[in-house]
Amino acid sequence: MIYVSRKEHFNAAHKLYNPAWTKEKNESVFGPCANENWHGHNFDLIVTVKGIPDPETGFVVDLKKLSTLIREEVVDKLDHKNLNLDTTEFKNLNPTAENIAIVIYGLLRPHIDNKFDVQVRLYETERNFVEYPA
Amino acid sequence: MIYVSRKEHFNAAHKLYNPAWTKEKNESVFGPCANENWHGHNFDLIVTVKGIPDPETGFVVDLKKLSTLIREEVVDKLDHKNLNLDTTEFKNLNPTAENIAIVIYGLLRPHIDNKFDVQVRLYETERNFVEYPA
Amino acid sequence: MIYVSRKEHFNAAHKLYNPAWTKEKNESVFGPCANENWHGHNFDLIVTVKGIPDPETGFVVDLKKLSTLIREEVVDKLDHKNLNLDTTEFKNLNPTAENIAIVIYGLLRPHIDNKFDVQVRLYETERNFVEYPA
Amino acid sequence: MIYVSRKEHFNAAHKLYNPAWTKEKNESVFGPCANENWHGHNFDLIVTVKGIPDPETGFVVDLKKLSTLIREEVVDKLDHKNLNLDTTEFKNLNPTAENIAIVIYGLLRPHIDNKFDVQVRLYETERNFVEYPA
Amino acid sequence: MIYVSRKEHFNAAHKLYNPAWTKEKNESVFGPCANENWHGHNFDLIVTVKGIPDPETGFVVDLKKLSTLIREEVVDKLDHKNLNLDTTEFKNLNPTAENIAIVIYGLLRPHIDNKFDVQVRLYETERNFVEYPA
Amino acid sequence: MIYVSRKEHFNAAHKLYNPAWTKEKNESVFGPCANENWHGHNFDLIVTVKGIPDPETGFVVDLKKLSTLIREEVVDKLDHKNLNLDTTEFKNLNPTAENIAIVIYGLLRPHIDNKFDVQVRLYETERNFVEYPA
Repeated sequence: MIYVSRKEHFNAAHKLYNPAWTKEKNESVFGPCANENWHGHNFDLIVTVKGIPDPETGFVVDLKKLSTLIREEVVDKLDHKNLNLDTTEFKNLNPTAENIAIVIYGLLRPHIDNKFDVQVRLYETERNFVEYPA
Repeated sequence: MIYVSRKEHFNAAHKLYNPAWTKEKNESVFGPCANENWHGHNFDLIVTVKGIPDPETGFVVDLKKLSTLIREEVVDKLDHKNLNLDTTEFKNLNPTAENIAIVIYGLLRPHIDNKFDVQVRLYETERNFVEYPA
Repeated sequence: MIYVSRKEHFNAAHKLYNPAWTKEKNESVFGPCANENWHGHNFDLIVTVKGIPDPETGFVVDLKKLSTLIREEVVDKLDHKNLNLDTTEFKNLNPTAENIAIVIYGLLRPHIDNKFDVQVRLYETERNFVEYPA
Repeated sequence: MIYVSRKEHFNAAHKLYNPAWTKEKNESVFGPCANENWHGHNFDLIVTVKGIPDPETGFVVDLKKLSTLIREEVVDKLDHKNLNLDTTEFKNLNPTAENIAIVIYGLLRPHIDNKFDVQVRLYETERNFVEYPA
Repeated sequence: MIYVSRKEHFNAAHKLYNPAWTKEKNESVFGPCANENWHGHNFDLIVTVKGIPDPETGFVVDLKKLSTLIREEVVDKLDHKNLNLDTTEFKNLNPTAENIAIVIYGLLRPHIDNKFDVQVRLYETERNFVEYPA
Repeated sequence: MIYVSRKEHFNAAHKLYNPAWTKEKNESVFGPCANENWHGHNFDLIVTVKGIPDPETGFVVDLKKLSTLIREEVVDKLDHKNLNLDTTEFKNLNPTAENIAIVIYGLLRPHIDNKFDVQVRLYETERNFVEYPA
């Protein structure tokens, strides 16, 4: 078994916000990330697929096709968007790095053969990143 | 003469928009950057000062003090903000990378001794960046 | 379960040295790293926490708080220090990258809820790095 | 147990090609990577060894020796080479990133003590990389 | 005046070779870069344009259009190619980093308004790069 | 004219210190960099040469030879050293990034043909760097 990975990126705005809380509690918990006028990031996304190389191609999966899949299912949906306002996924889900990674996994998993394990790594900044599933 | 540089960063939301134009023209010129719901970036900022090292310290300027200056005059004003909505500087100025760099230069220049030349380099993404003045 | 990670850094001096050995043996085993006048590195430190996102916040842990914890427990202790001379941890322990990572893990683990797994990745240079525990 | 890693690099030419297929099928599957006149990459190679630090040295393995081993067994064989033409390993094996990583693992594994686990990570580009074994 | 820059990349094979010299002299001067079976690189290309931001757009040039121009005039011609065999430009010109940068400048300059200065920076590896014109 | 550049690195310990000052003044001006037990850095060094490519080789200078020169004249002298204690250059000169760059320029300039301009860029950290001459 071998891991193969492809890196893509998208730029988006968001705010962190729990609608069950007061504005004060949101600001207390999320700090400047709760700015009601939004802030944003350049997100780097690495998708890893685990499997056995096909003996005919030497590929686990064709990374060009994986790149196209990520662009069609993830980047086209999130790039240059406001995650809270422009997507259905985060209408009722706080767009933390954790939740964005889980949503991206859910967007990709149905399109990748079940014989392969899939993992998503998402960099919100160079210093903050998450990997799902653990 | 020697150049000394300090790198800082901030994360912000913005949209590109000319209020003298129709929505259609804005979308035609600025593409997804005109998304009225905003998008955002991790901005990397490098400030360069040109001068002669002080013989007593060996410093052109103390980069810790330059770091503090950039944080107080630039990062505190722009980080986790919506550049169009939350700042006075971009109320009537389109926040392109070019204009953000020019504004940052204007924020810093008065606080740095005139015997030093100053230049600002701003990365909007790893692939798009500007330097002012040329 | 999801991994969340935060990157910090510190700069320090050290030498590699086994006091049970002669100077010649130390130089033979550790090469220039045994220089008795010290050398140093910019250490990049990534701390990873594994857990389940809290449904109220969407966070496994608040990365701002994790950043503050790393700064208080690790960076304040090691940054701009001589690891051999200025710390109690390496008084009798050779400050190899392996041992520095194990010490950092020991500094952080008691301050992070036991329901979370913790891993430390330490870059001594861009080309040499370690991860603990494996 | 702890992971220790060393990064090296080499530059090589290759083409992706299955000799059992027609030229048209090779071009259809491998796209521009099938260019019969070759293309090339700067390959970044990270070799990770898992073990227990030796109490006398504080090293799992001496990363200088690991670096020398990688240079002698891998870099000297692949650097500034045409993988398809200049190596015995890829005479009958398609030099995909997956297969290059598996070959590199095979070159190194016999030279590293069996008490240590070994993993190879290979970046074909900044955006495409593989890890073996998974 | 301000500089605006766009980064693109391409992967190619080449060899360094002066046809007026013997094989021995080529190998003596160019070392492993003279391997007659080729080697290759991931080339990173940064194109910088110097000008005044347009007051209506805030752009010196639209970096999306500059990106498209670089892809059409440079990347489509050089990516996944053998520079010596697959291009007319290097049929009689040694494809050193210097000459590749000069060729790329020549490919782009006619397509960029003469009121703008243009500079090309080309990374052959992370450690070797050139800028033209100086 | 074209710029060609080569990147090398070295790791060293140093402290910032003016012997004409009291310990208190040194600590007040240089902060933790004045730690009398030293601290250290991974220094990245880029040396740039400006000239005209030789028509026979296509090189301004052979970057392999420039790399060897930097290793012999700079890296062998500074790598894994204490700049204050182990070098003659900083016996009476405060090893700030500015002064280290000026010293490195002085070490290299006599060995490079006077028809070429030379510039040294030195990264003390990813965030602090200098270029000499300006």
